[in-house]
Amino acid sequence: MMPVKITYRVIYGDTDAMGIVYYANYLRLFEMGRSEWLRAIGVPYREIESWGVHAPTTQAYCHYLHPARYEDLLVVETDVEYLKRASIKFVYRISSQENGRDLAKGYTVHAFVDEKGKIVSTPQALKERIQRIMASGEFPPSSCQL
Amino acid sequence: MMPVKITYRVIYGDTDAMGIVYYANYLRLFEMGRSEWLRAIGVPYREIESWGVHAPTTQAYCHYLHPARYEDLLVVETDVEYLKRASIKFVYRISSQENGRDLAKGYTVHAFVDEKGKIVSTPQALKERIQRIMASGEFPPSSCQL
Amino acid sequence: MMPVKITYRVIYGDTDAMGIVYYANYLRLFEMGRSEWLRAIGVPYREIESWGVHAPTTQAYCHYLHPARYEDLLVVETDVEYLKRASIKFVYRISSQENGRDLAKGYTVHAFVDEKGKIVSTPQALKERIQRIMASGEFPPSSCQL
Amino acid sequence: MMPVKITYRVIYGDTDAMGIVYYANYLRLFEMGRSEWLRAIGVPYREIESWGVHAPTTQAYCHYLHPARYEDLLVVETDVEYLKRASIKFVYRISSQENGRDLAKGYTVHAFVDEKGKIVSTPQALKERIQRIMASGEFPPSSCQL
Repeated sequence: MMPVKITYRVIYGDTDAMGIVYYANYLRLFEMGRSEWLRAIGVPYREIESWGVHAPTTQAYCHYLHPARYEDLLVVETDVEYLKRASIKFVYRISSQENGRDLAKGYTVHAFVDEKGKIVSTPQALKERIQRIMASGEFPPSSCQL
Repeated sequence: MMPVKITYRVIYGDTDAMGIVYYANYLRLFEMGRSEWLRAIGVPYREIESWGVHAPTTQAYCHYLHPARYEDLLVVETDVEYLKRASIKFVYRISSQENGRDLAKGYTVHAFVDEKGKIVSTPQALKERIQRIMASGEFPPSSCQL
Repeated sequence: MMPVKITYRVIYGDTDAMGIVYYANYLRLFEMGRSEWLRAIGVPYREIESWGVHAPTTQAYCHYLHPARYEDLLVVETDVEYLKRASIKFVYRISSQENGRDLAKGYTVHAFVDEKGKIVSTPQALKERIQRIMASGEFPPSSCQL
Repeated sequence: MMPVKITYRVIYGDTDAMGIVYYANYLRLFEMGRSEWLRAIGVPYREIESWGVHAPTTQAYCHYLHPARYEDLLVVETDVEYLKRASIKFVYRISSQENGRDLAKGYTVHAFVDEKGKIVSTPQALKERIQRIMASGEFPPSSCQL
């Protein structure tokens, strides 16, 4: 579960006048997380794009539990909840590096589309890569449902 | 339903390399919408803050239906779905001014807190203002549940 | 001088934990200004792009005079300082709608490039449009040096 | 010269429809750089704030040399050009980790102010810290003029 971690240091540009990270910026952190997840399994998003496939977000949800503040070091944990015929769902947990407290949880769903925006099947190479990893147990994105 | 409308012209800074509005930026549009909703009923958010009350976002959700692009003129419609004892839920619809097509729908939930972040009751003045408007029927945020 | 004006209401998403508009976001306001300037003279940037020409920023400068705050209504005034063989320079003034106070001043320089990023001449149609306006005196971007 | 380096991986949220990093986002990278510079000398910005002092940006300039793109790994090098009686100037260089090519150069100037926004002297502890480092030669921000 949640195998890929990154850390991110909050800058002023992420915060708002309430003194906390602006709510839209958690979606930037989610993107950092899923980008790293794909890189970790050996299929960076740029490679998916080189196949003529994009994965625009169709849904995004975030539950804000505790505020993050300037200079906080955040941990973003990312996993794949499912990989379907033409979509993928990522789940995220953002916590404080300092005390481990959960700050936010959320998910994003992405459709696979071609360069004209038409829905296409989940790229075969991505599917196989995830299945191989699951079979080997080396890097178990354990909640993947293929 | 959905009584408060604003329009917004997409700038380059809102888009990403996929040529469409970056998914996190819809949450900025939601904020513009709810900020205008509060101003429209005569209780700008800055006034709520002057009472020592903040309304941080506790949940945000967006369903992305069709992409918005550079220079598109967007319509953001905002309404309140409910006002509870210590929280408020806004719902949003973003559509294309040019053809009326729905581009995104979503919601945000906000808790009322004091300056130390402690949960407080929904400010009485906000509650009364919304009830008065509903009773008068002049500006009916019809889905409000008080 | 400074003939094209737009107004913009500051949202939470523009501010930072210092309670003021984050310094990078003034460059978003500059973009809103020059986008409107081009639309005002009848050559929206999207049209320039339809000719296969882009105008990436090569320099940006901002002098921050007084802070802008949440819910402030800002006025962005934009003009063209010069239009050269292969570049254009915009100048900006951001002030408070409420009291007219100058908040920031700055400029951006843009090169004209083709779709491969190669420098090209200033599009003839843009040049002529600006010259015609100057000659007619109807909409005098008076500081233009052609 | 330019002693503090950080790296940053470009996300979709940093780019625009031209396929390159949006020009305002370089100012976010500059902030990451100067934040790390202060942390490297042992005076994180949060500590400066704990003394009741802020350092709002009074000027920012960026010269964009070559575009940065999605997933590029960027190097941000930061140094202090001068530390004056009541201000500080940082200089930045952003380059490509892959090929070392310079992508952007710029600077920011910051005034020291108290919590009411009144200009104050450069904090003594910051001044001494920088002088001590220069004297020891251990971490020579060599272009500092004290």
